[in-house]
Amino acid sequence: MVKRLSYLGPAGTYSEEAAILYDAQAELVPFPTIPAVCRAVSDGLTDEGIVPIENSIEGSVVYTLDYLINETDLSIFHEVVLPIQHCLMMKPGAQPEHVRIIYSHPQSLAQCRHFLEDNFPNADPIASLSNSAAVNDMMESATTAAAIAPQRAAELYGAEIIGRGIQDVTNNVTRFVLLGWKDHEPTGTDKTSLCFTFDQDAPGSLYSALGVFASRNINLVKIESRPTKESLGRYNFLVDCEGHRESGLVQEALGALETQVSELKVFGSYPRWQQSPGN
Amino acid sequence: MVKRLSYLGPAGTYSEEAAILYDAQAELVPFPTIPAVCRAVSDGLTDEGIVPIENSIEGSVVYTLDYLINETDLSIFHEVVLPIQHCLMMKPGAQPEHVRIIYSHPQSLAQCRHFLEDNFPNADPIASLSNSAAVNDMMESATTAAAIAPQRAAELYGAEIIGRGIQDVTNNVTRFVLLGWKDHEPTGTDKTSLCFTFDQDAPGSLYSALGVFASRNINLVKIESRPTKESLGRYNFLVDCEGHRESGLVQEALGALETQVSELKVFGSYPRWQQSPGN
Repeated sequence: MVKRLSYLGPAGTYSEEAAILYDAQAELVPFPTIPAVCRAVSDGLTDEGIVPIENSIEGSVVYTLDYLINETDLSIFHEVVLPIQHCLMMKPGAQPEHVRIIYSHPQSLAQCRHFLEDNFPNADPIASLSNSAAVNDMMESATTAAAIAPQRAAELYGAEIIGRGIQDVTNNVTRFVLLGWKDHEPTGTDKTSLCFTFDQDAPGSLYSALGVFASRNINLVKIESRPTKESLGRYNFLVDCEGHRESGLVQEALGALETQVSELKVFGSYPRWQQSPGN
Repeated sequence: MVKRLSYLGPAGTYSEEAAILYDAQAELVPFPTIPAVCRAVSDGLTDEGIVPIENSIEGSVVYTLDYLINETDLSIFHEVVLPIQHCLMMKPGAQPEHVRIIYSHPQSLAQCRHFLEDNFPNADPIASLSNSAAVNDMMESATTAAAIAPQRAAELYGAEIIGRGIQDVTNNVTRFVLLGWKDHEPTGTDKTSLCFTFDQDAPGSLYSALGVFASRNINLVKIESRPTKESLGRYNFLVDCEGHRESGLVQEALGALETQVSELKVFGSYPRWQQSPGN
């Protein structure tokens, strides 16, 4: 049976590229929001879901973090790191020197601002609802137009790519996580993602909580604080550490952590992304 | 002489609302990007600049964080916390029941999705480049349209507000920081923002760095890790702590921290935002 994989649609976005990078054989099912992607798994509509969790330029995708913290019991069982390569595309055979309009999501237009100023100083940027919608807007435009979007969108709409990697900052990657009913089994190069909070905001509580990792030589890969929904002064702390939660040391650390915090939620353990994952 | 204050334009955005909340007497000068707002201060075009640094829903504004980390020697000397109230607006006298199009920035459209589904199920969302541009698009639209934008944009364009606070999540605030040539003097209820990094990613280095605060009972208000530009494995850690850097304990802690980290940069000390600041 073919695996069904929910992702943040529409088709032709970076989320779809990430889904294909993770599993080119899966049946991809688009949903309009991050909660809807996750609920599709919870409700059994799909087997797994993929959602963006952080971008090297834009930072964390807090809708995903907040959903993991508050709304779901699904586990992270995999991660995918996708290089974001903005492509410039036009109708096949159109002349770049005639471009009067550039369509894209405002965020992508901002990320390519220098490229556009240098190469298309006389073209007007026009906002689209998504990068994928931008290609549709461009293909339907009566005025000669170009669109900034992922390569995948050019394939879907039959557009011609006339420039690749046109974003101003080159080190632009997005990390996606795969959500399902259980963790990945240990592989030897794993990460564990978790969050915790404290009843009261005592000085030093975060410090002693991190001590459970430090005293066991467990490396922290990421740490972030998010305000809780209840009040601005209380925080959830999100931590990614090296190791699998079934390994002795991490298991011990989590046990010790549980006695120090008011709530502890482990999102899951999963293999660290490698360039050639062999999925 | 009237103070000149640079902000992230165009006029009619939440950044302008924040600038007015901070100082209604200042001469406001819009710039198109966060770096341009800051450079205006560095280059002497304006006396102070205001930039967004985090939103309770969207998370950190990493353009601002990265600029503070890598690009500027300006100091944070104030903060402003602005409640984000999306307003629905139309041409004066237009009939809400005839609305066929809703203009806004895609992020604002997403934040009001439930409201729009419940109240305007038959209207099409159309993307604009900014919330302020959305009001202009709406005022020029031949089809009956509404726009989602801040109250300030309605004042600027002469639009009529027909709904306030229409965002799906109510606890939506943005924190802005004021940048200038030096810190604020101590007031007794201050915060200090800083960042540091380590030469090598040794397990426990973050833990012992945080120990300099914990051992002095200095409360941490916020902590976040950001990948450095050089490599994905190295991080800058951003910390907000309570207290002013000229106060004895914080000064001591920063001195101790300096011996443990490879780079330490203090962004500034400034009074914690109060609801009625009396600026």
